[in-house]
Amino acid sequence: MIIYEVTLEIDFEIIEEFQNWLIEHVNEMLATRCFTSAEIFTETPKLLPADGANSRDSNHLNQSKAVVIHYKVGSESDLNEYFLRHASRLRAPAVRQFGAKFRAKRRVLKLGLS
Amino acid sequence: MIIYEVTLEIDFEIIEEFQNWLIEHVNEMLATRCFTSAEIFTETPKLLPADGANSRDSNHLNQSKAVVIHYKVGSESDLNEYFLRHASRLRAPAVRQFGAKFRAKRRVLKLGLS
Repeated sequence: MIIYEVTLEIDFEIIEEFQNWLIEHVNEMLATRCFTSAEIFTETPKLLPADGANSRDSNHLNQSKAVVIHYKVGSESDLNEYFLRHASRLRAPAVRQFGAKFRAKRRVLKLGLS
Repeated sequence: MIIYEVTLEIDFEIIEEFQNWLIEHVNEMLATRCFTSAEIFTETPKLLPADGANSRDSNHLNQSKAVVIHYKVGSESDLNEYFLRHASRLRAPAVRQFGAKFRAKRRVLKLGLS
């Protein structure tokens, strides 16, 4: 099982508009048929003790919110097809609309210790 | 649904020993009964195009490997209990054994846009 994980750090000033875009965007991602399902999570730093080993510093926490999407991928070739045929097209509108007011980080996670 | 996510960046020189410890560790985590299940993933940067929006820089990729564990949490109070009663005890052995040869980052992910 493979998860294509996208972490979006979203400035508070655009949060509502961005989340509306995101729901639409996840549907478009699924419509490519490169992913079998998707789950949207909100990072909740308040549930983590402040022990200095957290992912984001407190400056970021005061200005932005992080949303994490797990796209389940059926196979490596489905994921490749997404990058080759769909990624640029599906990412462009958010960059046009929100500019530097959000940041994206991406990871591919494969089940197991390889 | 809540995921307690731990990302471990592990230097190659300790990788085998560390992974043996990790399998044992995940079992000990589950034995606390604070989590309902756990999945271990390996980050596979080779499946991601090199477009400058990835989570780790290439220096890190040459010296270390990232492993991500998703611990499913039944409730916020189960997670609190883990932090209060178990976290220090379960984390200490790896710090003693591997020192600075691994780094941990932690996030709590809550299903949905909150």
